[in-house]
Amino acid sequence: MIKDNFTRSKEEAMKKLERARVAKEVDDKILPILDIINSLDNYYTSSSCAGRILLIQIPSIGDKKNAVFLGKWHREIEGREIIDTVKKSEKGFIWILAQSPIIHICAKTLDDGDKMVKLGNRSGFKNSSLKSVKGRIVVEIASTERLDAPIGKNGKIFCNKELLNLLVRIANDVLKRSDKKLERLKEELNKI
Amino acid sequence: MIKDNFTRSKEEAMKKLERARVAKEVDDKILPILDIINSLDNYYTSSSCAGRILLIQIPSIGDKKNAVFLGKWHREIEGREIIDTVKKSEKGFIWILAQSPIIHICAKTLDDGDKMVKLGNRSGFKNSSLKSVKGRIVVEIASTERLDAPIGKNGKIFCNKELLNLLVRIANDVLKRSDKKLERLKEELNKI
Repeated sequence: MIKDNFTRSKEEAMKKLERARVAKEVDDKILPILDIINSLDNYYTSSSCAGRILLIQIPSIGDKKNAVFLGKWHREIEGREIIDTVKKSEKGFIWILAQSPIIHICAKTLDDGDKMVKLGNRSGFKNSSLKSVKGRIVVEIASTERLDAPIGKNGKIFCNKELLNLLVRIANDVLKRSDKKLERLKEELNKI
Repeated sequence: MIKDNFTRSKEEAMKKLERARVAKEVDDKILPILDIINSLDNYYTSSSCAGRILLIQIPSIGDKKNAVFLGKWHREIEGREIIDTVKKSEKGFIWILAQSPIIHICAKTLDDGDKMVKLGNRSGFKNSSLKSVKGRIVVEIASTERLDAPIGKNGKIFCNKELLNLLVRIANDVLKRSDKKLERLKEELNKI
């Protein structure tokens, strides 16, 4: 039997995911969801992130391409961790980011893609869309919660304790909301 | 001649845009771009924003639904304007946001939609996608630059002068980059 493009690409993607799973490069939190999606005939996952808090350093304003990751957490954090991590920074602007989950899913047909975007929206991922509809059909499951805030420069934090605590609370809140949305997404996927 | 759905919807949208133009509700900066898109047979614009800086007040963390707009600027700002505007705030968390342009475009066919997403990406709007592919085909032209940072609470700014100046520089930088991308988008549209 000759395999179609979709089936071949799915097999490749599943091998890649298996290698990433063995290397523990995939978030435990998101793995059960990827497994449900990949168990469906007309879908497979190509990349994902369960949501995270980042501390990055960028050489100049707007130059996020050359960002250096100082810290990365897939869990809630404490202010102390930010202060300790900033010590690693030497030159450039320091930003704290909190990012909600993103899952990229390839769909067999446009109809399948459309259904997955709607399922994402229903689960609270209101920024879901189709990134590509020709060649590969690629769905992005994404949400709107986020924090993108500069907090200092050249190894020094500009914000006082009050603001730092607020930033940490907000970043943790993004992760809490992300976890709830992933639960809803799992419930919706289990209904298929 | 019986008009198709797309033509009827486009006529409706053009009437709405004309009313908004007369009421000066549409950004001068983005109007020439909307006019080019609307001059194309297979497209029309449904909503847009040229990019802006916002100062908002939210009652509790994460509750952006109940945000109150304290200030809105479609141009670069000065730190003084932030300080003056915060005085209007009484209760809740104060955030500064800088948002890059967003344009929603309806396309006649999926092929037209796909072409517009690619044109958006080519112009530097790397977050462009199809929001809907059934019924109406809706393209979102969008970019990734942004600032989403809390700056205070209950009428008081938490950040020092240094951080406030940095936030203003970054917000202004988002607008500067937005203007450049709109120029590139106009050039690409003129090639069609």
